Amino acid sequence: MIFTQKLEQAWAATGSLLTVGLDPDPQRFPAELSGRPDAIYEFCRAIVDVTAQYACAIKLQIAYFSSARAEDQLEDLCAYIQDQHPNLPIVLDAKRGDIGSTATHYATEAFERYGADAVTVNPYMGYDSIEPYLSWRSKGVIVLCRTSNTGGSDLQFVESAQGEPLYLRVARLVAERWNTSGQCALVVGATFPEELARVRAHVGNMPLLVPGIGAQGGDIPATVKAGLDSRGTGMLINSSRAILYASGGDDWREAAAAAARATRDAINTARSLVLGG
Amino acid sequence: MIFTQKLEQAWAATGSLLTVGLDPDPQRFPAELSGRPDAIYEFCRAIVDVTAQYACAIKLQIAYFSSARAEDQLEDLCAYIQDQHPNLPIVLDAKRGDIGSTATHYATEAFERYGADAVTVNPYMGYDSIEPYLSWRSKGVIVLCRTSNTGGSDLQFVESAQGEPLYLRVARLVAERWNTSGQCALVVGATFPEELARVRAHVGNMPLLVPGIGAQGGDIPATVKAGLDSRGTGMLINSSRAILYASGGDDWREAAAAAARATRDAINTARSLVLGG
Repeated sequence: MIFTQKLEQAWAATGSLLTVGLDPDPQRFPAELSGRPDAIYEFCRAIVDVTAQYACAIKLQIAYFSSARAEDQLEDLCAYIQDQHPNLPIVLDAKRGDIGSTATHYATEAFERYGADAVTVNPYMGYDSIEPYLSWRSKGVIVLCRTSNTGGSDLQFVESAQGEPLYLRVARLVAERWNTSGQCALVVGATFPEELARVRAHVGNMPLLVPGIGAQGGDIPATVKAGLDSRGTGMLINSSRAILYASGGDDWREAAAAAARATRDAINTARSLVLGG
Repeated sequence: MIFTQKLEQAWAATGSLLTVGLDPDPQRFPAELSGRPDAIYEFCRAIVDVTAQYACAIKLQIAYFSSARAEDQLEDLCAYIQDQHPNLPIVLDAKRGDIGSTATHYATEAFERYGADAVTVNPYMGYDSIEPYLSWRSKGVIVLCRTSNTGGSDLQFVESAQGEPLYLRVARLVAERWNTSGQCALVVGATFPEELARVRAHVGNMPLLVPGIGAQGGDIPATVKAGLDSRGTGMLINSSRAILYASGGDDWREAAAAAARATRDAINTARSLVLGG
């Protein structure tokens, strides 16, 4: 199924805009997984099982697998999600950015090796670094626009002679020129709601992946107000650490589920206020 | 040894500014490697062995290994180079770009898992996406500045209100603010010699990794003239496909060695003209 359709069905079926981000750090795993060679897989699998009902998508941060020599566990995890949670879109957060033939290899990694429904990419090298991903017609390509970190301003806030900040140029390029097939989405951080609103005003109902709530401090009501599309959806609001490590004790599964449910509910409360007002 | 020192020693010892880029594509491998499970490793190992004497560095494009599920072969290859060619700096071309803790995981992948001497990174997310790499004090961090592809202009050529194109702002940020410890270098494509000269004018003797000669069509004399530093070195001029696939026949090793030698010589002829003139 096409990524954007799968996402729309997930929004409708779950009533949730929450995306659960898997940044598996073995140093923060519960004691029961200590020393297990497949600890990363088992931890992530358990988190997915207990949070899937509260989430419109799952986001896998590949760096955590790469640093741990755990590509095999990432393969197994993706296969597990596709098998047990077939309606849950998988976003591979890889932030790749390279030219032509190399980009094709990265797309092959994301879409064929791991079977991800969408991958995050970096726009610095321009359209011909994005285009190869679009050949996989059913897949989503989520382009970095305004990132949630402080240093994001170093380049993304540079203004053109026309007074347009770079992140807004990226939003326009993607919306007006690069998104020829409806496969594109954007990353816009929750830590800058004003800029999120500016992006939304330029991109219609394009899906926005929004990191930065939870541990990074983004405000949920402001984020929801700034980012909802005309249908009252259009966002993948990501939370990672605040869900994954909600408890380090024996109740880690229940605590993660409760954190995911509470975040979904906080998002939906904010959504009701916006849509009702 | 510190990356920049290792590089300076390699420039001096080999008299070469050539970097051999390993983009191993099994579809282009010689027949004798067909069907071998370790074909990527064997191909790359042979190329390194026959070209190392003509090169100041080796560049490994990680996407080709990731798409082929060949991380183990990349590990073995890096270990082989460190063992058999200990003076040859290894650049991992990964173009990573992510924030804080995730960047630390990517740095761990590059510097500890693979033992690379330097890694390429993307500046779009700003300084706090670069800083984690700098904690590995002996390692090099090579920041994308002006890339060799056509689409590079989409963002890198955007001019600020002060008339400064984005790639030049990146060069200035790195030279004036981010490179606090002398670990940084820049990627500037050979396909734009005028811009290469502008970057060089801003960054002193900072090393420049220069892709784009060979298959991508960059002109060697123009590139050398534009990019040499005040010592007559300062460049890692990369050639990948034109060396790797110089012959698809039984003479592939000899052809690769001859192509590397000829490229080194063409660079040095151009260098003599610049330095003698």
